[in-house]
Amino acid sequence: MVALTLVDGVLADTVPVSDRGLLYGDGVFETLACRQRQVLQLPAHLLRLQDSCRQLGIPVHSQDIEQQIGTLLSCLPPAPEAPEEGVVKIIVTRGDGGRGYAPPASVKPRVVIQFHPMPADYAGFSHSGISCMFCQHPVSANRALAGLKHLNRLDQVMASRELAAAQTRAANADPLLQEGLMFDGQGNLVEGTRSNVFVVIDNRLCTPDLSEAGVSGIMRAALLDWFAGQGVTVRVRTIAGTELPLASEVFICNSVMGIWPVNRIYDLSTDTCLTLPDQAMARRAQHGLLKL
Amino acid sequence: MVALTLVDGVLADTVPVSDRGLLYGDGVFETLACRQRQVLQLPAHLLRLQDSCRQLGIPVHSQDIEQQIGTLLSCLPPAPEAPEEGVVKIIVTRGDGGRGYAPPASVKPRVVIQFHPMPADYAGFSHSGISCMFCQHPVSANRALAGLKHLNRLDQVMASRELAAAQTRAANADPLLQEGLMFDGQGNLVEGTRSNVFVVIDNRLCTPDLSEAGVSGIMRAALLDWFAGQGVTVRVRTIAGTELPLASEVFICNSVMGIWPVNRIYDLSTDTCLTLPDQAMARRAQHGLLKL
Repeated sequence: MVALTLVDGVLADTVPVSDRGLLYGDGVFETLACRQRQVLQLPAHLLRLQDSCRQLGIPVHSQDIEQQIGTLLSCLPPAPEAPEEGVVKIIVTRGDGGRGYAPPASVKPRVVIQFHPMPADYAGFSHSGISCMFCQHPVSANRALAGLKHLNRLDQVMASRELAAAQTRAANADPLLQEGLMFDGQGNLVEGTRSNVFVVIDNRLCTPDLSEAGVSGIMRAALLDWFAGQGVTVRVRTIAGTELPLASEVFICNSVMGIWPVNRIYDLSTDTCLTLPDQAMARRAQHGLLKL
Repeated sequence: MVALTLVDGVLADTVPVSDRGLLYGDGVFETLACRQRQVLQLPAHLLRLQDSCRQLGIPVHSQDIEQQIGTLLSCLPPAPEAPEEGVVKIIVTRGDGGRGYAPPASVKPRVVIQFHPMPADYAGFSHSGISCMFCQHPVSANRALAGLKHLNRLDQVMASRELAAAQTRAANADPLLQEGLMFDGQGNLVEGTRSNVFVVIDNRLCTPDLSEAGVSGIMRAALLDWFAGQGVTVRVRTIAGTELPLASEVFICNSVMGIWPVNRIYDLSTDTCLTLPDQAMARRAQHGLLKL
């Protein structure tokens, strides 16, 4: 099954070349897990979408988006022709036109909503854990865009190319190598290419501060809330890359993968590998928050 | 006349929703001036395009692009139905698909080429000079992307919105307010929203170092070459925003506008204005390099 797509509420597979998403990455997106044809964490995603659009000055109504998600799901053929488990991606761009970078005086945002099948291997990685690698491509720093899941994602593309190259290199043929860790220009840990990262150092759970760079994920926020409710303090702080050898546990998360323990982290530049001995926090959150 | 567009060599006005330019800003672009149906500085633009694509790993052949520009110009109706003077925009994306950020194993780049009429007021600004303002939105810092004219342009969009807001505010109804100056997170001058910037301080011509942020413009490179040939040293260095009150001259440039002297710079946050008393370097380059 190929992806099913709605553009502005209508089944379609193109957008105008004048769309500002294409021209400038002028928009935002959300990626939601879908189980038994129900999207998960919808209110949190719609809230972030609305908030991101407000910060960028894109006038969008989350009720419209919610309605279009319903339309999309109702267009899916019954299982097994379309799978019950999938990924719903929502893209909102500022719409068409304007003279150069400046948007037109009156903006009509464009909404693209897609259903993709859930990658078959995701559930397995929750159990087995994965391997990560250090990516060389740095995350762009900008306090005014940090946290937003906007469409300027060249950093993630470039880091994902590093990951894909390592995955196909015979010497590193670890089938669990599934994510790359990204750092800012000063060498501080920011995030995975498509995930947020939690680290246990000195028995303290911490996650990178994202006020200068990175995407502030819905699952990251859910984990911060959930751990707080469990009486576990999560320190949101600058984590230097040089601290990672001190870590006893690392796990990554996003709305679609859930929580994946990290077993080892490759540093291809020095041909070394960190082994993480512990998975206690990840397993606790999987069973408590995700009810795996 | 609306824009005339070729997509992969064929007259078209849409791209697939799976285009990675839309999904991630995964591509680059060039903007060329066109006079009497001839594009200017074509070899330099094609060289930069090819070089940027190489850095991003997008396999593109500049001969194909050159051929498509020829096709586009041959599709233009005769003047006055289509103007003789225009702007040719070339967008190259990595093409369609892939699973998430990772590109597909085999990439087929997409090429979008457009002809737009030349903005009517551009020639006038070369003579009158313009006013600028300080933009609050910072330029993203990333040494691995700095210099490239890639499609991740949210920074320029956000700064252009500040400029547009100031242009429509009655209290600042200066018709020459045409550009916003952008700074990095440390307050160093980087560029204009759509231009590079040159500054004369203490009788020394200088322009911002772009190794961490900014677009390395074709006209900026041409000016650096031309001034060197004139025996004028241009210092490429970090220029703190706090140095601007010491400037005697400021001018901006790009391939379409050419060179615009800056008469004054508004700081809306303090409701103050810097006046630049001199235009000697800008006029010299206009008459020498551009043969105005």
